[in-house]
Amino acid sequence: MQKFPVPSLPRAATRTNTLRRPLYSQWQRLKHSIPEDVATLAKLADLNPSKLSTTNTTTPKEVMPPEELVFGRSFTDHMLSAEWTASQGWLPPKITPYQNLSLDPATCVFHYGFECFEGLKAYKDSTGAVRLFRPDKNMARLNQSASRIALPTVDGSCLTALIAKFVALEERFIPSVRGYSLYLRPTMIGTQRTLGVGPPGSALLYVIASPVGPYYPTGFKAISLEATSYAVRAWPGGVGDKKLGANYSPCIVPQTQAATRGFHQNLWLFSEQGENGETEEQVTEAGTMNVFCAMVNKGTGKKELLTPPLDGTILPGVTRDSVLELAKERLVPEGWNVVERKFTMKEVAEASDEGRLLEIFGSGTAAVVSPVRNISWQSRLVDCGLKEGEEAGPIAKRMKAWIEGIQYGDEDHPWSFKVSG
Amino acid sequence: MQKFPVPSLPRAATRTNTLRRPLYSQWQRLKHSIPEDVATLAKLADLNPSKLSTTNTTTPKEVMPPEELVFGRSFTDHMLSAEWTASQGWLPPKITPYQNLSLDPATCVFHYGFECFEGLKAYKDSTGAVRLFRPDKNMARLNQSASRIALPTVDGSCLTALIAKFVALEERFIPSVRGYSLYLRPTMIGTQRTLGVGPPGSALLYVIASPVGPYYPTGFKAISLEATSYAVRAWPGGVGDKKLGANYSPCIVPQTQAATRGFHQNLWLFSEQGENGETEEQVTEAGTMNVFCAMVNKGTGKKELLTPPLDGTILPGVTRDSVLELAKERLVPEGWNVVERKFTMKEVAEASDEGRLLEIFGSGTAAVVSPVRNISWQSRLVDCGLKEGEEAGPIAKRMKAWIEGIQYGDEDHPWSFKVSG
Repeated sequence: MQKFPVPSLPRAATRTNTLRRPLYSQWQRLKHSIPEDVATLAKLADLNPSKLSTTNTTTPKEVMPPEELVFGRSFTDHMLSAEWTASQGWLPPKITPYQNLSLDPATCVFHYGFECFEGLKAYKDSTGAVRLFRPDKNMARLNQSASRIALPTVDGSCLTALIAKFVALEERFIPSVRGYSLYLRPTMIGTQRTLGVGPPGSALLYVIASPVGPYYPTGFKAISLEATSYAVRAWPGGVGDKKLGANYSPCIVPQTQAATRGFHQNLWLFSEQGENGETEEQVTEAGTMNVFCAMVNKGTGKKELLTPPLDGTILPGVTRDSVLELAKERLVPEGWNVVERKFTMKEVAEASDEGRLLEIFGSGTAAVVSPVRNISWQSRLVDCGLKEGEEAGPIAKRMKAWIEGIQYGDEDHPWSFKVSG
Repeated sequence: MQKFPVPSLPRAATRTNTLRRPLYSQWQRLKHSIPEDVATLAKLADLNPSKLSTTNTTTPKEVMPPEELVFGRSFTDHMLSAEWTASQGWLPPKITPYQNLSLDPATCVFHYGFECFEGLKAYKDSTGAVRLFRPDKNMARLNQSASRIALPTVDGSCLTALIAKFVALEERFIPSVRGYSLYLRPTMIGTQRTLGVGPPGSALLYVIASPVGPYYPTGFKAISLEATSYAVRAWPGGVGDKKLGANYSPCIVPQTQAATRGFHQNLWLFSEQGENGETEEQVTEAGTMNVFCAMVNKGTGKKELLTPPLDGTILPGVTRDSVLELAKERLVPEGWNVVERKFTMKEVAEASDEGRLLEIFGSGTAAVVSPVRNISWQSRLVDCGLKEGEEAGPIAKRMKAWIEGIQYGDEDHPWSFKVSG
């Protein structure tokens, strides 16, 4: 598969009435992809944390009891935002009371899907200090998502600094209970108020925050998946590896259809013709999570932790990357192979039949890891290796403990970013 | 390729904490796809034109001189809108002054791409009567788009009736000049204010209107295309045949990159392995238009008008359908074959080299037809059959005349829907 190429420099184009917008703004947005020494056009303003203004709410909300929290339903007192225009760049960022956005009905975010987002959490450690988890990864991905849909990029460390200030202001909303956190949602939308299909001349970046409980309030629970091959989430050359709104709404019907048949999520397969001409149904993602599969290799007898490679159809999850890194550091010395490669549902079913399938789990910011009990595929239910009554395999359990240990600051680790305290 | 299946009836699902929302709303939305006699649940309110309320603007805008109109930049005095909730169905529709939407920053349209739209035009005929063109096709497609992303459907004839009332109110904005019209943009967005990924429990349908001039103010102009194969617009099992916001933002960078190299639009290719194992680059769409190719068949020597079939990767354009219907009615008697089949860039280039390529044109609501002069593909420029100095081939010219003749009411035709007069 071909990679999305580095944008080349604009040169004098034959302009016609179908191309009215100047290319200057486009060029400004692409300039991060090209060497600095050719970026000779006037420098637009970058996101500047020193210009932050804060307007405190006059009607502070009551903090909800942790047990009543539902993911993404209640929000904190404030929001962080910054506007961008093609002629000025990023305007001074603001913290304001949480409030509605007022947008012209012609705004391009409503029509052409100019929107991308991130998801990360702020955790309170045992000393009361507030920590983020690998925010640099979220910032890098935000820029990859934004530039793929002609939205502006930001300086990641500046946005992290702003988020740190925002989180510090909202600290009282972060429950001091293990498993709880403050979910942060950086969002960027195109705000141009015209219906022509082209790069937005203005955008809005904002961050809202929602206090959340553990994904499994009753404890770690294994889920059942339904394999989906009638609909396809992502394609080589598409945008499945970007965190765009475009990737989510088309997933709802397959997900709810799986739910009507009693499954918690669907498992996205991607069909490709294998070398023998047979159709191979590759495992890609589970609902909105990356997928890991632990099995004993048929040939070598060695234990392997598999996950699909980042070939452009897989979201580069921060938790996915963390699982891979920790597995290389802590499981390889125990004799495991850690492999990013394509694998098929047929392989999974075969390993299950032969007793070689150890466990399957999803990974994501919401649940950290989510163990899978079984997968409905081609009129059969593939057992994923959990023992009866068991809700998680040993790798899922250990990964959850390792990652949460870093997130909550039990383990001193460079992935944990201290905001305050 | 498999079709998206008819949703099956929800049955008692094993509910867990990851599936908190009742399935009732989902069921209500899917019910149009299943036989009426099993739709026994309480009937939700449908969109009801008799409940329309109208609030007239107190600050009417000045009508712009036609020559100053730019597509989708200025709008009329009012907008039509209706809210939907999963528990109540469609609330009474309203015509109000054109105004901003006020939405919570957590609203799902900003995060997960819950948005779809339509585009159609209102024309003033020589008697001053206002006409729409095949609005039933737009309504049907709106419902296909909406239901694919778990948004509610509407009764198409009710929405058309409402649009007719809206257009009648805004009649003064429709220029009485041939080539001018009032562009209508029905839009539906998900308005649920939570971050959980699931079917929206509420939605907003609105229609805004923009007076527009001819796509080519200086006359019919042939365009140059750059073939794109590094990025893919749509794929089997995806949503490329729906008018979703999701399909537009990912197209901008390839489009602007083509522009930087002097091309007006890009031509989306889709690569598939042919029977001989060779990669076939199929022609799919040009920018945001469908594509037609007129060539002499190498074997039969007969003239053929080709367009890619509606295999799930092609937007089912109303103009595309109109071109096909008119070609069957008016070109077949002249000896043409009219064929919906996949064809490749290699075929096009071969026909060009052998002098068999007659003309290529795009079709869409904006320009009706848009003739193509040449296509940049694999380091060569494929000439598309126009003579030097010629801006359109005979088929493109005749199609434009035929379709506009119906749109502006010169020809009495069932496709023209009289709103007033």
